[in-house]
Amino acid sequence: MAKSRFEYVKGFENHPILLLNTYIAVRIDGRGFHQFSKEHNFTKPNDVRALDLMNQCAKSVMEEYTDIVIAYGESDEFSFVISKKSQLYKRRESKIVSCIVSRFSSSYVFYWKDFMGDTPLKYPPVFDGRAVCYPSLENIRDYLSWRQADTHINNLYNTCFWLMVQDPSQKYKSEKEVENILKDTNSSQKNELLFSQYNVNYAKLPEQFRKGSVLYSDKRNVTEIGKNGKEVVRSRRVIVIDHCDIIGEDFWKQHPHILP
Amino acid sequence: MAKSRFEYVKGFENHPILLLNTYIAVRIDGRGFHQFSKEHNFTKPNDVRALDLMNQCAKSVMEEYTDIVIAYGESDEFSFVISKKSQLYKRRESKIVSCIVSRFSSSYVFYWKDFMGDTPLKYPPVFDGRAVCYPSLENIRDYLSWRQADTHINNLYNTCFWLMVQDPSQKYKSEKEVENILKDTNSSQKNELLFSQYNVNYAKLPEQFRKGSVLYSDKRNVTEIGKNGKEVVRSRRVIVIDHCDIIGEDFWKQHPHILP
Amino acid sequence: MAKSRFEYVKGFENHPILLLNTYIAVRIDGRGFHQFSKEHNFTKPNDVRALDLMNQCAKSVMEEYTDIVIAYGESDEFSFVISKKSQLYKRRESKIVSCIVSRFSSSYVFYWKDFMGDTPLKYPPVFDGRAVCYPSLENIRDYLSWRQADTHINNLYNTCFWLMVQDPSQKYKSEKEVENILKDTNSSQKNELLFSQYNVNYAKLPEQFRKGSVLYSDKRNVTEIGKNGKEVVRSRRVIVIDHCDIIGEDFWKQHPHILP
Amino acid sequence: MAKSRFEYVKGFENHPILLLNTYIAVRIDGRGFHQFSKEHNFTKPNDVRALDLMNQCAKSVMEEYTDIVIAYGESDEFSFVISKKSQLYKRRESKIVSCIVSRFSSSYVFYWKDFMGDTPLKYPPVFDGRAVCYPSLENIRDYLSWRQADTHINNLYNTCFWLMVQDPSQKYKSEKEVENILKDTNSSQKNELLFSQYNVNYAKLPEQFRKGSVLYSDKRNVTEIGKNGKEVVRSRRVIVIDHCDIIGEDFWKQHPHILP
Repeated sequence: MAKSRFEYVKGFENHPILLLNTYIAVRIDGRGFHQFSKEHNFTKPNDVRALDLMNQCAKSVMEEYTDIVIAYGESDEFSFVISKKSQLYKRRESKIVSCIVSRFSSSYVFYWKDFMGDTPLKYPPVFDGRAVCYPSLENIRDYLSWRQADTHINNLYNTCFWLMVQDPSQKYKSEKEVENILKDTNSSQKNELLFSQYNVNYAKLPEQFRKGSVLYSDKRNVTEIGKNGKEVVRSRRVIVIDHCDIIGEDFWKQHPHILP
Repeated sequence: MAKSRFEYVKGFENHPILLLNTYIAVRIDGRGFHQFSKEHNFTKPNDVRALDLMNQCAKSVMEEYTDIVIAYGESDEFSFVISKKSQLYKRRESKIVSCIVSRFSSSYVFYWKDFMGDTPLKYPPVFDGRAVCYPSLENIRDYLSWRQADTHINNLYNTCFWLMVQDPSQKYKSEKEVENILKDTNSSQKNELLFSQYNVNYAKLPEQFRKGSVLYSDKRNVTEIGKNGKEVVRSRRVIVIDHCDIIGEDFWKQHPHILP
Repeated sequence: MAKSRFEYVKGFENHPILLLNTYIAVRIDGRGFHQFSKEHNFTKPNDVRALDLMNQCAKSVMEEYTDIVIAYGESDEFSFVISKKSQLYKRRESKIVSCIVSRFSSSYVFYWKDFMGDTPLKYPPVFDGRAVCYPSLENIRDYLSWRQADTHINNLYNTCFWLMVQDPSQKYKSEKEVENILKDTNSSQKNELLFSQYNVNYAKLPEQFRKGSVLYSDKRNVTEIGKNGKEVVRSRRVIVIDHCDIIGEDFWKQHPHILP
Repeated sequence: MAKSRFEYVKGFENHPILLLNTYIAVRIDGRGFHQFSKEHNFTKPNDVRALDLMNQCAKSVMEEYTDIVIAYGESDEFSFVISKKSQLYKRRESKIVSCIVSRFSSSYVFYWKDFMGDTPLKYPPVFDGRAVCYPSLENIRDYLSWRQADTHINNLYNTCFWLMVQDPSQKYKSEKEVENILKDTNSSQKNELLFSQYNVNYAKLPEQFRKGSVLYSDKRNVTEIGKNGKEVVRSRRVIVIDHCDIIGEDFWKQHPHILP
């Protein structure tokens, strides 16, 4: 088609490429979700409905972008790992980051009602995103371990924090006071505090809270209706949502195809 | 809080910065919207409801990010211009692009029903995004002119194309045939074709189709209910949606504050 | 010619482009020149021969790269400003930086003897380089002013420092002691110290030391031998080396062609 | 020290970092060396003195930057491979590229006389440089193989070209004619041409021409004068210059420490 004399402005674009033969981790993060979770009355420290909604959004992203081999989420953040060999959008950074963030964000509104029921969504949420390249298998494993270790640290803290803030005896005057008490405690002190004061055995809390969510594609037996109208069990590739440990070796030995 | 031994992976991140003292144009673009518009029965060549929905999403972005001084949209794309002096997210490229794309995408689902009524949204849409820096006033004006010139070129073509494809006499056998006829015509030939074959005066078509949509913040008189319960007219800063020419000088002379 | 199966590795290259329509400042800086100047017995605080050698290297760079409109140097650093419209090496950052650094470095050895006479060069020196884009005339003017203001600050300090360190009375025990004395003094105190202790009027020191060196291309009358064997005066474009103020307006009013 | 109001211009700098845990290949390349080699009467197709000078420059670079684990050179280009774990200049791209190019360029002039004898150097040469990251051992091995395969292709071609151009019978009218003849020949035809027309067995030509130059650090027995004034043989780390095959496995099996 005809070109205008303004066409030259396209020359100002640049298209940074994510280094070939590296794992790409795209991490998205809810913006202002402290406020967002308050306005939508999320249960503290963990709202299962909101976490399941996040998982559904991640699944929606993985269905659209099959070069994603594993995703890991906690709280209001999610990480997507793209395979080393992927040529998605010719590895253009802006395209990859913006499309994943876009699909996640539109999914969040699209599936809201399915998970949050009658709670109305008050305004369109915002997630930011970034891409990071990791050259080696060790690096990308450590990236995922970093996020899961973070989940543990945050969840242990938040579990203490909210039990103390919501203590029926109102023995703590303010959130500030609770913060000050907790900031000098280590893990075992927090575990002890939970058990002695609130009779909570941290290790028995749901794995979804303690381990976060792991999504990957796997073969599963799926019951379908065959051509003859009868039920038939077929092996299909589906996206699995799990809450298991991914820091140790077991998970990776059982799923060698994820990060070959 | 405690740090894990995996923390080192943060060192692999880089944070490209958009050059200081330049205008930033963030352009977002619907992915697979040819298909998307078909599946949702958009009127061709222009669906007012869908265009108005796009405008509402752009408005939602501008309400969130007040450093955006003007936005321009057509079809399934929108450009947002951020002021030269803006320090939004310290001008980090990934943050700026991903947050604008995210807000636009979540808004698209959030406001869908308000514009598309009973037409159900079948799946969460995806928009990609990119940022481009323009150093001079001339450059950024030319960027906006480039997009508006493109709107004209595309809309004239599409108006011909869809009238011919939907010709009641079915004189054209296929979309391919129409493409072949149109590809060698210039603007005046297309205008002539519209007028002679379909009695359409292109210049009389709605400006929204021919000029696209221009959004900017401006002072307008707004009727409000005062403290005394009576109506009062106040001058307020509101986001205006216009369909005017932004290639010539008139618009810029009338709104000198937009690109000072 | 034939291609090998290893050719794919070229795909890992990226070629960052310096933003169009911006001034490019390439600054080079001697590495380890504190040590280098000691080993080659440079006069302190300023060695005219070494400064003139730097200027000759800068001239050599400007003769090779005519898109450089002005250069400014002091001590062991030099800045080269490339015009906004330049398409030198398609504005590829690596090419521009590496070629300017390379020409400067090879010139330093090439012209060494012409300036340093019998002092042998002990080893090949190293200069690093970087490129920075400046969008506006004000920005690039301020960049040059920044470097010249720095020259003043450094030279005033160094003049004090070396006079004190080399004080015939040896009243200061060590370089460390002198540093400690100077670190809390402002400009006027340093001027006063020079005058009262060493009878030095700072303002009368050579401009080359106080203002640094400014190189630009200008028309000058040059005496040449004409075809008839007689001397003839012709107006030629030559590279001028000056030591004038470039912070104020005068220089720029007199040379409007440098940064149009 | 005091800061000026121009200091803000430093904020325009950016400092791209070469991805952690990747091999960095810095390749430098003579600019205009076709012309340079003519003006300095280099022997064609290979001038041993000029090649040895290049090797000495590469050695000079490796002595300065000990994170370089191997270098490979041919004709007027050289590649330097920096170890994966290197933190040289915090992996800042501009610093790494400019410093290596600078040291190479100043060395070229510094050592010129040692290799080129009475041939005067007419002007300071220019080399450009670039850095490329390679994530895996396979990638960096393939990079080096790519350069050595290129040496073979170029040298075979150039050997034919110059023998034909300098053919005593002057049977070829021009360089253009020779180019036209050669452009459609494959390797074995070129080998055959050399043997039948010029009685040259390509495989017997010096390895330096056919394989290029490989530089790496290795332990060698060095004869030194001990404290007692007598000669003593000690094992020292020295930079070795070799002309061996680095495409096959043998070299790497013998030197496992180079790319661990």
